[in-house]
Amino acid sequence: MNREDQLVERTVRTIPSASSQLRSRGVSIGIGDDAAVLAPTGRTEWVLSCDAFLEGVHFLANSHPPDSVGYKSLARATSDLVAMGAKPRYFLLALALPASRTGAWLDSFLRGMARAGRFLGMRLIGGDTTNSSWISISITVLGEIARGRALTRCGAKPGDIIYVSGKLGRAQLGLDLVLNRLTRSPEFQNLLRPHLYPKIRVKLGEWLAQNRIASAMMDISDGLSTDLGRLCKASRVGARIEARNLPCVTIPSNTAQALRKLKLDPLQMALHGGDDYELLFTVPPRCVKRLRRAPGFSELSAIGRITRDRKILLLGSDGSSITLAARGWDSFREK
Amino acid sequence: MNREDQLVERTVRTIPSASSQLRSRGVSIGIGDDAAVLAPTGRTEWVLSCDAFLEGVHFLANSHPPDSVGYKSLARATSDLVAMGAKPRYFLLALALPASRTGAWLDSFLRGMARAGRFLGMRLIGGDTTNSSWISISITVLGEIARGRALTRCGAKPGDIIYVSGKLGRAQLGLDLVLNRLTRSPEFQNLLRPHLYPKIRVKLGEWLAQNRIASAMMDISDGLSTDLGRLCKASRVGARIEARNLPCVTIPSNTAQALRKLKLDPLQMALHGGDDYELLFTVPPRCVKRLRRAPGFSELSAIGRITRDRKILLLGSDGSSITLAARGWDSFREK
Repeated sequence: MNREDQLVERTVRTIPSASSQLRSRGVSIGIGDDAAVLAPTGRTEWVLSCDAFLEGVHFLANSHPPDSVGYKSLARATSDLVAMGAKPRYFLLALALPASRTGAWLDSFLRGMARAGRFLGMRLIGGDTTNSSWISISITVLGEIARGRALTRCGAKPGDIIYVSGKLGRAQLGLDLVLNRLTRSPEFQNLLRPHLYPKIRVKLGEWLAQNRIASAMMDISDGLSTDLGRLCKASRVGARIEARNLPCVTIPSNTAQALRKLKLDPLQMALHGGDDYELLFTVPPRCVKRLRRAPGFSELSAIGRITRDRKILLLGSDGSSITLAARGWDSFREK
Repeated sequence: MNREDQLVERTVRTIPSASSQLRSRGVSIGIGDDAAVLAPTGRTEWVLSCDAFLEGVHFLANSHPPDSVGYKSLARATSDLVAMGAKPRYFLLALALPASRTGAWLDSFLRGMARAGRFLGMRLIGGDTTNSSWISISITVLGEIARGRALTRCGAKPGDIIYVSGKLGRAQLGLDLVLNRLTRSPEFQNLLRPHLYPKIRVKLGEWLAQNRIASAMMDISDGLSTDLGRLCKASRVGARIEARNLPCVTIPSNTAQALRKLKLDPLQMALHGGDDYELLFTVPPRCVKRLRRAPGFSELSAIGRITRDRKILLLGSDGSSITLAARGWDSFREK
């Protein structure tokens, strides 16, 4: 058999898939033909996005564990569906890798992706495998949502309260540990996790859309300062956020000494650190009470308000006020 | 503005797109948010596929014109929809490229892709742009088809007649010209075209599915010997094809002298050359008469028959018969 075809068979054996053998609701033809065929019900809409995860840009093949590369590539792509309030359903995987990575590396990669697939409720329905000098992973994700319920970036109104889920800057901290080769010590394992295996807030996203609680939503993939700027631009509004309300990373006391040389600044990490995949959303004041029933409500933080004035202001704990520049992740920024 | 966002705006200005400004039938939310949202009608099914097109693997950034890279990356991805009999509709583009390619190279690339988009009837609905050391293009395509009409690889039956569209090996000839730096002479321009700007048989594919003429279909992307093997395996059948019926490339007399050093063998090129994106399909004898009404019927060739015996035999003009091994494109094959 063609070696590309063999790799596809191995992939389908490991990752939750919809093939002619393993039919899934809504899938007429799964992986294995020229294309997959889906039979929509007509009651829901399809949400679609694609995301590249590249060696040397998004991960380092010799520093990041392969199962994390598999897990994270699917998780971060799926985050775009969750950011619309959709229910994750299917994905396509275009995988390019050197022949030297088709052994143990690929096995571990596929196991990580399979774990993410089970956690997120995603099934593989198609893909493409190619030999190349560098690892390149491109994932297309499909979700479902009730008609008209998708949460976009453009519905925020002046007066709406701005929320984020979880803590911000945790993925940046994990990345700093990897780049400084501080990955071996057991006390760092919990700090590494958000960077290697990001948590995707599937239930929260769906709940916010289903219950029409949020006026706008997106995920924070490039950092709060960049992504809040995008949300405000799309909604033609501004924002005022308060530094003391930002959910910053807490450095555990048993690691503080070892981390001193990294000169970590939790506020800067929360403002500009990328890769957290937490949800950023706005809630009209009349809906705030109902928000208390949200899954994981205790992990939400109200960080500020949407304003009519189209600037993004950061209010310091000392009463200062500065315009917040977009300083999150931009792969094309000149260094 | 973030430079990634600027590139997305440039892309949307050049390529036929569905954005909030440019609404398209069936698109609730187009390019510009976390994900696109499609509203299916419930009467049709969606056909989906993805395809990577990588520098150094599928094209050479310094030998292939950028508008060909843009054209071909979309055309070859769309070919998988056409191979199911679907009507091409939308695509997502995940583009990674070095900053040095974001000027004239990108402009030309986008123009080529826009031309393919108009020709194929495809609109861009989303994507992802990243800086990387190598150009990596990943395209997800979506088409529509009436329920239950998708043509798979697995419906061929013994006795069915095997057809291919167009001529086979033309893309291989074009590639040989590029690799041997024979791209400048005017007399080679027509020979280069099928490699640089492959023709996709959109109307033929749709017609065959709509009229239930074909029992199985796929596109020839990796070469007839490999792809016919896949079709036969999926259908659990074999095939007997006749060398004299294969639509081979004809070398024009004004170029024959110059091409002698390439030692071209049209039969081998037709059997194993990849990248033609012609359609390979099987037709039950009772449907052969109706096939005459197919768009582009005069360019179809009956090359053999499906057999019960699960081998693929090639009958030579001299009466010889050999088992045809899959010797088409396999990026992982050891050289």
